[in-house]
Amino acid sequence: MPELRKDPIVGRWVIVSTDRAKRPTDFFRQQVTLKGGFCPFCYGNEAKTPPEILAYRPPQNNGPQPPRDSPGWTVRVVPNKFPALGIEGSLNRQAEGMFDKMTGIGAHEVIIESPEHAATLATLPAKRIEDVLWAFRDRIVDLKRDRRFKYILLFKNYGEAAGATLEHPHAQLIALPIIPKHALEELEGAKQYYIFKERCIYCDMIRQELENPVRVVSENSEFVTMAPYAPRFPFETWILPKRHESSFENSSSQVFEALAKALRELAIKADIVLDKPAYNLIIHSSPLQDNSNEHYHWHLEFMPRLTKTAGFEWGTGFYINPTPPEESARFLREADVTHFERELAGLL
Amino acid sequence: MPELRKDPIVGRWVIVSTDRAKRPTDFFRQQVTLKGGFCPFCYGNEAKTPPEILAYRPPQNNGPQPPRDSPGWTVRVVPNKFPALGIEGSLNRQAEGMFDKMTGIGAHEVIIESPEHAATLATLPAKRIEDVLWAFRDRIVDLKRDRRFKYILLFKNYGEAAGATLEHPHAQLIALPIIPKHALEELEGAKQYYIFKERCIYCDMIRQELENPVRVVSENSEFVTMAPYAPRFPFETWILPKRHESSFENSSSQVFEALAKALRELAIKADIVLDKPAYNLIIHSSPLQDNSNEHYHWHLEFMPRLTKTAGFEWGTGFYINPTPPEESARFLREADVTHFERELAGLL
Repeated sequence: MPELRKDPIVGRWVIVSTDRAKRPTDFFRQQVTLKGGFCPFCYGNEAKTPPEILAYRPPQNNGPQPPRDSPGWTVRVVPNKFPALGIEGSLNRQAEGMFDKMTGIGAHEVIIESPEHAATLATLPAKRIEDVLWAFRDRIVDLKRDRRFKYILLFKNYGEAAGATLEHPHAQLIALPIIPKHALEELEGAKQYYIFKERCIYCDMIRQELENPVRVVSENSEFVTMAPYAPRFPFETWILPKRHESSFENSSSQVFEALAKALRELAIKADIVLDKPAYNLIIHSSPLQDNSNEHYHWHLEFMPRLTKTAGFEWGTGFYINPTPPEESARFLREADVTHFERELAGLL
Repeated sequence: MPELRKDPIVGRWVIVSTDRAKRPTDFFRQQVTLKGGFCPFCYGNEAKTPPEILAYRPPQNNGPQPPRDSPGWTVRVVPNKFPALGIEGSLNRQAEGMFDKMTGIGAHEVIIESPEHAATLATLPAKRIEDVLWAFRDRIVDLKRDRRFKYILLFKNYGEAAGATLEHPHAQLIALPIIPKHALEELEGAKQYYIFKERCIYCDMIRQELENPVRVVSENSEFVTMAPYAPRFPFETWILPKRHESSFENSSSQVFEALAKALRELAIKADIVLDKPAYNLIIHSSPLQDNSNEHYHWHLEFMPRLTKTAGFEWGTGFYINPTPPEESARFLREADVTHFERELAGLL
């Protein structure tokens, strides 16, 4: 008998198939592969992107610093060439009869995660992933000063099936003058729980999950990687900080260091179990103007794109998940990272 | 400058690109085509499906009625061979620590819309589509007696890109012991508006849209076909009854007759403008136990699957729509149905 499970934060019921649970090998998969061709994100092509907003370059001991928009960077942030929102102008809220609209003000940036075209979160050293997380933080801190913005979406689409149009490793940032509905729902659900219990719902969830770790994939000093109780998608996995913190950008350097390791480990495990799947990665964090609170707990959601289409879910807004989270967590937990590490190091 | 527009019912903000609006021909498209092979929904293969729940067969003047599960039907309803929910058993609500679950009780049925394997909503006569609508109604009325069920999802996935696994024309019905989140949100939004204004929000919307019909595709005695103000997807189109009615199944026969015509017209227009796109079609209606109310207005949502992936939307829960609804409505409005009709009739 399948189960109906409820997400405790947003109240979403999903069907979790337990009888004929799909195993990793059951999914239609299109391994993410490189097609090559001209790439505006590779070294030497810096002029093909809009001028850089931020770049990390190793400090030079002697001689002048390398100029902007030149090679030598490890992480580089540029405006999206085809931005979904415009950065100039003022918010102009208007009615259109009974409807509401406003000018599409916002920032849309691209974080180029590495100069290496073929790098992935699984093959990049943890230190380099940490740099990417710092770039995320630096951009949030900068954009936060612009009072027009209320929320920042940070996400990564990896592989064509996940919506990526360029294959060079990159993430995206969208700063919005509104709080998107999905974020508002989580914030509201977490706040209601806090009003009722005077505890953070995510903290409660982490405590319960660690006591009986059937949905836990792995754990380090700062983070727990686990499948949520009522996942929308097979192999949906969340990475949550163990200590309560409402906003990503408030994290300490040791948190970023531990997150880079957790993220890299999950990427390797997913590559092993799901054979290099396409995925979406999203940072869920508090709104910019309420970035330190007791009820919301920032976290990262990882969603591999395993099924060929999700027409049903798109259409109906209702989710049927063919893999119980206990199963997906077990596959990911048991995946042996050391073999991959040794292969990467050329030892195999 | 792009626009941020708010859906007045659920409060969702979406970005609508207005500058570089995508035209129908700009979309990556995979025309829905038939691959053939064995089909369990064709005449003669009735034994390959679970036994029929309902079938319409033309009345016989003399001789015995044809037996069940034999050819001769025009519409046939069968249980889904691989149901997402189980029909037997009682609802068993349980806690799992802080989480909530219940047994996956429900009905999952398939409505085979025509014996003709290659038929589509564009090529079927309006009368046959009307039969399908009656089958929808008959199944709702029957399932409604089962007090375990709270909501019925009626939808059609057409084409592989929309999640269809079988190509023979069919729709699906899922009866649920819960109200899915997306339905709850619409109901709640409509109720709040009603409390505030003492008017149905959909009735207000229809009135305003017909006054300045920039987003209207077409209209008949009972229905208006229009693009919503803040569509999530390019060419998203809604068909709404002009007279207030909270539930699909409460409609009169003249309403079903007019809906069949409106639906067929939209399917033809979409085939012309978007070159036979894959699509999802969903009926939005009131919960079973509140099926006659003042605040909710049943309707039908049509969403062509035009973009190759929607990884961004899936991942972030936030929508960027590259085609303003005024543009999509204009393309559909201007599509000439008469040419298609004459071609279908063999006159061209």
